[in-house]
Amino acid sequence: MENILVIGIAGGSGSGKTTLMRNLTQGFGDGITVLSHDNYYRAHDELPFEQRSKLNYDHPDAFETDLMIEHLKQLKQGKSIQCPVYDYAIHNRTAETITVEPKSVIIVEGILIFENKALCDLMDIKIFVDTDDDVRLIRRIKRDVAKRGRSLQSVLTQYLETVKPMHEQFVEPSKKNADVVVLEGGKNLVALNMITSQIQHHLDHASEPLTELQEDSE
Amino acid sequence: MENILVIGIAGGSGSGKTTLMRNLTQGFGDGITVLSHDNYYRAHDELPFEQRSKLNYDHPDAFETDLMIEHLKQLKQGKSIQCPVYDYAIHNRTAETITVEPKSVIIVEGILIFENKALCDLMDIKIFVDTDDDVRLIRRIKRDVAKRGRSLQSVLTQYLETVKPMHEQFVEPSKKNADVVVLEGGKNLVALNMITSQIQHHLDHASEPLTELQEDSE
Repeated sequence: MENILVIGIAGGSGSGKTTLMRNLTQGFGDGITVLSHDNYYRAHDELPFEQRSKLNYDHPDAFETDLMIEHLKQLKQGKSIQCPVYDYAIHNRTAETITVEPKSVIIVEGILIFENKALCDLMDIKIFVDTDDDVRLIRRIKRDVAKRGRSLQSVLTQYLETVKPMHEQFVEPSKKNADVVVLEGGKNLVALNMITSQIQHHLDHASEPLTELQEDSE
Repeated sequence: MENILVIGIAGGSGSGKTTLMRNLTQGFGDGITVLSHDNYYRAHDELPFEQRSKLNYDHPDAFETDLMIEHLKQLKQGKSIQCPVYDYAIHNRTAETITVEPKSVIIVEGILIFENKALCDLMDIKIFVDTDDDVRLIRRIKRDVAKRGRSLQSVLTQYLETVKPMHEQFVEPSKKNADVVVLEGGKNLVALNMITSQIQHHLDHASEPLTELQEDSE
């Protein structure tokens, strides 16, 4: 496969990234491959459950990003990959893998994907979903308390102790690496239309070399 | 004309808005109408030159935005308008006007256009060009000293006395009204491609009703 469009979508926890992703992929069905950074959380077979549950999962080092980069390169070369599967219940990678097939459009998504330069260099379009901190916190509370049955106190403690400091240290500065910032998260229909048009344009011209996209507008 | 796409492009002084505009319009030639807020600087025939030169031209009140809104509405209805012409040398509106014809795509541009809600409501896509304050200042110095022959001291004084406070009071907060924020100004080829694709998509489907654009991606 010669002409693959790689779109990176990043943004803080609760930014609406997932909603944007869902709306984006819905329209194209099987035409898009999604690669999630969360699948590349490191395996920690050497640690007992108790210690694994206390690791900082909001730090870039929590991820085996080198493996993700290697996989993305293979997908761009038209090769299928064996994507690891992470189990949040046991805080560890499972023995299972999922076969991911290369497609003409690959979306790479994750909170911290713009923090890694080598990963960024593999992307053609980098979109950061930007939502106010307080709105993101409210969404996180709703999700973790209502849907995951956690106590409000534990959600707020985790937010203050790791989510917020890691966001300020790694996620927010990585916004600078984006090409486009989308405001208001997943419900931004205008941004959704723009990205959809771009994907459609790519699919319509998939047989032409990728540089054509740039020459179009110079 | 039933189906007109209105794109607003805002951003601080020196943000690269003009470069983005130029690159955008180049590809489409006569297919795009551009409406600049600067053309709607208020007439001040009642004031002598000396007083006119001391007015604050970075404040929203410096513009006759109501007239621009009226003109934009007429263009959207397929009617041509008589756009005022402003003369910076005399700090006043001239007696001349320019006939602006309605086109399938209208770009509205200006530093403060997202500050006015009624004007925003007429736009389908709102793009804010976001560039660091120091980079914008450097561009402004280069433009005003090198190209317009002003003294460095006068450029810096104006920057601190009106440009910066007005930016912080009106321009920066108006970024919240944008749908999409473009980083690094006019040299952002990825953003340029996205907007170009969206315009091309509109031109290709110009005979269909505008709502189709939204339904596409829901």
